Amino acid sequence: MERKVNGMEIKRYKHDAAYSYTLGMALTIELISQKDIYPIRKIYVHPDYVPKDNKYNMFQICKEAQLPMEVNQKAFQRLSTKENVYVIGIFDKRDRNIEPGKQHVVLVNPSDSGNLGTILRTGLGFGFRDYVIIKPSVDIYDPKTIRSSMGAFFHVRFTCYDSFEQYRQRFSDRQIYLFMLDGKINLKDLKERPRKTPFSLVFGNEGSGLPEIFHHYGDSIYIEHNHEIDSLNLSVAFGIAANAFSESL
Amino acid sequence: MERKVNGMEIKRYKHDAAYSYTLGMALTIELISQKDIYPIRKIYVHPDYVPKDNKYNMFQICKEAQLPMEVNQKAFQRLSTKENVYVIGIFDKRDRNIEPGKQHVVLVNPSDSGNLGTILRTGLGFGFRDYVIIKPSVDIYDPKTIRSSMGAFFHVRFTCYDSFEQYRQRFSDRQIYLFMLDGKINLKDLKERPRKTPFSLVFGNEGSGLPEIFHHYGDSIYIEHNHEIDSLNLSVAFGIAANAFSESL
Repeated sequence: MERKVNGMEIKRYKHDAAYSYTLGMALTIELISQKDIYPIRKIYVHPDYVPKDNKYNMFQICKEAQLPMEVNQKAFQRLSTKENVYVIGIFDKRDRNIEPGKQHVVLVNPSDSGNLGTILRTGLGFGFRDYVIIKPSVDIYDPKTIRSSMGAFFHVRFTCYDSFEQYRQRFSDRQIYLFMLDGKINLKDLKERPRKTPFSLVFGNEGSGLPEIFHHYGDSIYIEHNHEIDSLNLSVAFGIAANAFSESL
Repeated sequence: MERKVNGMEIKRYKHDAAYSYTLGMALTIELISQKDIYPIRKIYVHPDYVPKDNKYNMFQICKEAQLPMEVNQKAFQRLSTKENVYVIGIFDKRDRNIEPGKQHVVLVNPSDSGNLGTILRTGLGFGFRDYVIIKPSVDIYDPKTIRSSMGAFFHVRFTCYDSFEQYRQRFSDRQIYLFMLDGKINLKDLKERPRKTPFSLVFGNEGSGLPEIFHHYGDSIYIEHNHEIDSLNLSVAFGIAANAFSESL
């Protein structure tokens, strides 16, 4: 079945587009490994692309997987601002709903696509596969997020909610850990971790953190640091927390 | 004493320039607090700048500190690619040599100015003030590094070396901890930390890590994660390590 999409129709990513794309060889290989979840519209290959070896020969990979492939320089001028990008994969957006019984990471109003991608990469490495995003937020399908996730995007599930309250109502029987600058428990003192109840790690926006009212939702935790800095970078704070909680998975 | 520098002479940052600059109000206030170390050439204020309150009134701050100030729109067009920047501070680069008796962070060939800035911010928060950079590397004076450090740049010391060997010879009596994907000790199992000998935490390049040969320099450590990701982001890995070692400071 031939898709209607051709080179001229694909434009630089916009939030309301039905598709997104991978920029670069490694990311596109991750996409292809998940093509049953994310249908691939087309693989663009740059005219200057030269396969390094058989394992990473995009022509062969596309042939074997029966994927529509096109050698096209214009697509790269339109979609990529970076040099050294020789392969682009266009795929349909699909929602991959989070699983109720699993540990969740909840990001309230994340505003930086680089941080979001790094969080997916870090979280996947520590075993977290289910991500909740409370809007307004950056777009998880943004090619910048996918790129900074180093491909982790394709291996996690995520659901967006309009408010934390909405998420909380849908998943009520969970242990909630809130990461806040004025949290009540030092992460290092938190020895007892839940073994049976699923839990959620909740993080606020890069600039403003979690609003005061969140104290009511669960146990608030802080990561101890001195007062020479206002706060830790969000993806660094998440990394420290995810590493600590990975023992409980 | 009037400096020769005027608006027209200041150009977008280059590695070989004798000056660098802060983009934004908060960063410029951090710079002014360290003006005895980093001589300030000029503070540029955007014509649209409106002081929010007396504490953060740049006109008043410059007057009180007797700093050369200029309202100048062109400087912003030249130096800033971001919106919402209304204040720029031009300062002389100065080397702030690391101290021998302190704990060091050694970054071997860091290649991303955002990561480097985030590392300074994170490290300062966990008490690390001395940074060694092994060249080739990104430029620590790059305005992008300073910006992503959120001002931590002005509160740390740093020295560049051409090779790790050179650093090692200069500071020979130290405990060396090398962070490597194939490290021998799990960070979580490292219970005994040095209390008396100063130590150095060593991290490799974002893409390639530390070369194999580094195993000979000290104890190699890994941060445990699963194999769904190739590695952690450098600044995330550093954050986890700095948090763990902050107890030893």
